[in-house]
Amino acid sequence: MTPTVTVGTYLARRLEQLGLRHLFGLPGDFNLGLLDEMLGGSGLRWVGSSNELNAGYAADGHARLRRGPAAFVTTFGVGELSAVNATAGSRAEDVPVVHVVGLPATRAMADGALLHHSLADGDFGHFVRIAAEVSASAVVVRAQNACTAIDRALLTAVGSSQPVYLGIPADVAVAQVSAAPLARPLRVLRSDPAVAEEFREALTEFLGGAGEVTVLAGPRLHRRHLEDRVRALAAQNGVRIATQSASKAMLDESHPANLGVYAGTFTRDPETRRRVDGARPLVLAGVVMTDFLTGSFTHGFEPDAAVDLHLDHARIAGAAFYGLFLEESLRILEEVLEARSPRPAPLPRRAVAPVAEHVPADPDGPLTHADLWPLLQGWLAPGTLVVAEAGTSFYGALELTLPDGCDLLGQPVWSSIGYTLPATLGAMLAAPDRETVLVIGDGSAQLTIQELGRLLTLGLTPTVLLVNNSGYTVERAIRSPEAPYQDVVEWDWTRLPAALGAPGTPVFRARTPADLVEVLAKVRADRESGGGHAHFVELLLPRDDAPDSLVQLARSVR
Amino acid sequence: MTPTVTVGTYLARRLEQLGLRHLFGLPGDFNLGLLDEMLGGSGLRWVGSSNELNAGYAADGHARLRRGPAAFVTTFGVGELSAVNATAGSRAEDVPVVHVVGLPATRAMADGALLHHSLADGDFGHFVRIAAEVSASAVVVRAQNACTAIDRALLTAVGSSQPVYLGIPADVAVAQVSAAPLARPLRVLRSDPAVAEEFREALTEFLGGAGEVTVLAGPRLHRRHLEDRVRALAAQNGVRIATQSASKAMLDESHPANLGVYAGTFTRDPETRRRVDGARPLVLAGVVMTDFLTGSFTHGFEPDAAVDLHLDHARIAGAAFYGLFLEESLRILEEVLEARSPRPAPLPRRAVAPVAEHVPADPDGPLTHADLWPLLQGWLAPGTLVVAEAGTSFYGALELTLPDGCDLLGQPVWSSIGYTLPATLGAMLAAPDRETVLVIGDGSAQLTIQELGRLLTLGLTPTVLLVNNSGYTVERAIRSPEAPYQDVVEWDWTRLPAALGAPGTPVFRARTPADLVEVLAKVRADRESGGGHAHFVELLLPRDDAPDSLVQLARSVR
Repeated sequence: MTPTVTVGTYLARRLEQLGLRHLFGLPGDFNLGLLDEMLGGSGLRWVGSSNELNAGYAADGHARLRRGPAAFVTTFGVGELSAVNATAGSRAEDVPVVHVVGLPATRAMADGALLHHSLADGDFGHFVRIAAEVSASAVVVRAQNACTAIDRALLTAVGSSQPVYLGIPADVAVAQVSAAPLARPLRVLRSDPAVAEEFREALTEFLGGAGEVTVLAGPRLHRRHLEDRVRALAAQNGVRIATQSASKAMLDESHPANLGVYAGTFTRDPETRRRVDGARPLVLAGVVMTDFLTGSFTHGFEPDAAVDLHLDHARIAGAAFYGLFLEESLRILEEVLEARSPRPAPLPRRAVAPVAEHVPADPDGPLTHADLWPLLQGWLAPGTLVVAEAGTSFYGALELTLPDGCDLLGQPVWSSIGYTLPATLGAMLAAPDRETVLVIGDGSAQLTIQELGRLLTLGLTPTVLLVNNSGYTVERAIRSPEAPYQDVVEWDWTRLPAALGAPGTPVFRARTPADLVEVLAKVRADRESGGGHAHFVELLLPRDDAPDSLVQLARSVR
Repeated sequence: MTPTVTVGTYLARRLEQLGLRHLFGLPGDFNLGLLDEMLGGSGLRWVGSSNELNAGYAADGHARLRRGPAAFVTTFGVGELSAVNATAGSRAEDVPVVHVVGLPATRAMADGALLHHSLADGDFGHFVRIAAEVSASAVVVRAQNACTAIDRALLTAVGSSQPVYLGIPADVAVAQVSAAPLARPLRVLRSDPAVAEEFREALTEFLGGAGEVTVLAGPRLHRRHLEDRVRALAAQNGVRIATQSASKAMLDESHPANLGVYAGTFTRDPETRRRVDGARPLVLAGVVMTDFLTGSFTHGFEPDAAVDLHLDHARIAGAAFYGLFLEESLRILEEVLEARSPRPAPLPRRAVAPVAEHVPADPDGPLTHADLWPLLQGWLAPGTLVVAEAGTSFYGALELTLPDGCDLLGQPVWSSIGYTLPATLGAMLAAPDRETVLVIGDGSAQLTIQELGRLLTLGLTPTVLLVNNSGYTVERAIRSPEAPYQDVVEWDWTRLPAALGAPGTPVFRARTPADLVEVLAKVRADRESGGGHAHFVELLLPRDDAPDSLVQLARSVR
């Protein structure tokens, strides 16, 4: 007789096979049985979340850092709907998050029972239709084909780097299904070999004997964990790599082939802009062409004249090769370049200026962005994960030249304020030993502050830099800086860690560049002496002070 | 020449004409111009919110207490989607909330531009389709018919007591439209007089000479502000009134005609249950028939054998009278009963036992629900608004016999935890002079805690009773009380008011009945000496202790 498992257990096993070890979310009336099945005896650890939006954000950050899917569990209606924004962000930014929702029993839904947590109109389809708008797939699982439905959804998430929604009725969660499919772990579909061969030929012809090739490397490469391949490309003679803001430092910023961040007319270094806009040939790899990433559509190249490698297809001068995944198209690019004969000469080494120690003009004046980022620059350790919130934090971080091995995590496409606080928690659970710095503004942190307690009590060691600039500075930069809607309630930030359950967290406050230098030195000394705990630093900045790049961006939004 | 106003100003004027004075929400890239138009020179005061879910909850509480529509403003995508849960709650519970969303410019949306805050797929219809699932109407306003679209949406909200969604593109917000429609304030449609006459005749015949009439008065009467009419009915000879949990104390609980709360087999007083289930005739007025409100569908009456007064139609033994609003059908009921001849004799006065002072069995033992509610009972002042969170708080509050003039605000249909904290803020802004007590559990309060700072710094004077029972006690009562997902991060609650910007708030902690007696006496003394501020009280309760009615409910959910 075929061994059976419950649907909840089946799902948990599949997630484990995909490498998951953590589960975010909240319990609710309709998911308790599901949670018991998913957690009972499985290798999944319940992390929990303080609300559902935060759960979705944490799962998103977790998926980005673990380079594979993450999952969170909520309950029908009241739970799931609070996470729609997080799922939409995962969709906009290509992050494979599995949203598992415990639904009422199949029979009650079929009968249209007037249950609590429903709209009391007998229609149980509202919320799955909502999920479908922001997910690559949204299904209500039935016992009869539960294994197939779950497998398909997970394959979609992994294969397309997109969020999926699995609604599991209470009776289905505990129904027995065959365990047989579990014998063969899910494997993502590979590219079509015939298409790959056609692409290789066309690419060889298109690139011809080009001595120099410029690659614009976008964030989708990060989602597919292809940084190694970018590094391999960069090692080839005649190849230059620019990145987008959303993929900054994908290649070490000190690498001689790294041209820096390209964003149309917003590109900081005119040389970078000239080389990308004038590149013949230009290769776009995993690039995203939204307003913030193209300097409000001021890019000077034509995607239809380039080689354009997408997640699940590629184009050469507009002609499409479907059935070719990014992993494969990038590998073919590498091989075609490698095979060029004669081999191009090495490019002249690009001068990467060593980062000079920053000396603030007025160490005892107010701390401003002009000093904040250069001082952080000198403090950041190689390999640090910098998480920067949308607004002054992300655009300030773009002005850094990140030390080798650093990564910048942000949300420049979806740009939902509050995202990074729970995302840092999720990210750190995927890479707990990595030094991690979160930079977030006061207005943003207020949206999701409840997750600070969990972040500080899970034994993780983030350095949280809370940029207190008295409200929504990014919106003030766009319009009406004096309007009452730009203000937030003034919190006493350094009291928060203790109030939220982490009284042992060292807290600091910096009002001047001199303060910041001192605080950063203390944090570094503490970390180096093995102080295995988090640090919380409030930075007091003038209300209207913003990094130059944000001012420019705000002008374009206006 | 016809005078013109901008669309944003037009909307603000219409809201003012409907009596609105406060606006909740957050600014964002796509709503700044709209906010400037709405707030510039209008009588609307910006209250603001710490996140969008809280904004939606605050608006919902505001609408309930001001007995008319409330509004909140968010930005496209990242803002609006966080509020979907709140809007769904307004829909499930019949609350007229207007969600105003600032969208990108019409042209950019028509072109399918890849903007930030979008899913970057060129489809700008995702979010309005999401709104349509949980709103009575969801439209994107165009300049050409802006006045009509806005008027229709507001009429829908007011007429149906339901939430509506108005998406306003950035260019439309500042477009000029005729101010002429503003000369005539919106008036909600009245009932069809012919239908009303038919209903009167049918009702007269149906009720016949019934000496006794039992009315089950539901929460929709509250939404239409019809408590006065219920009182008038109760004054008639031969009329008895039962309420639902969602409309508890709609009629003073000491009123001799008040039968108390009816909930099928979950009804506390067998006499109440017997009278409602056995009533011939029975009148259902604004009743909601969901699981929690009917004792899991154990009601012993047949709606199709009753008179059933809905928001926009009425039924007599199943036969429907469309075009007849609740206000009118209730008035006709009152007149038909008044006209009965001969007038029925007065009912024997129902004995309403005076509330005895509660003496805890063990004043120095742990505080439990068995003492909490009786002690609160003796402390509550007449006229108090009691706001009780879903879970132990709401079901504990149901065990109170509320003093005259009290009202219970909760969310027993949608039951989204975290709702009451922002809702209290909204409610109090509508009735700032009313004594207000919020009772909320620790697990629930964590979901929306950021609004506590605003609640405590707006000059309002709530008494916040934070029931700290170490996690999701309501879920523990349903299943797996020891599961890790039932725990929350342990916060230091009494430090929160100061951390969230209200250091002057007196904070208290009660672990025993004796503590509670002392704390309540202090709060009362402070209030009576004119201490015009809020009070924050943490009540420490055993993890698994729950009111009897919740234990019963949990059994039914299980």
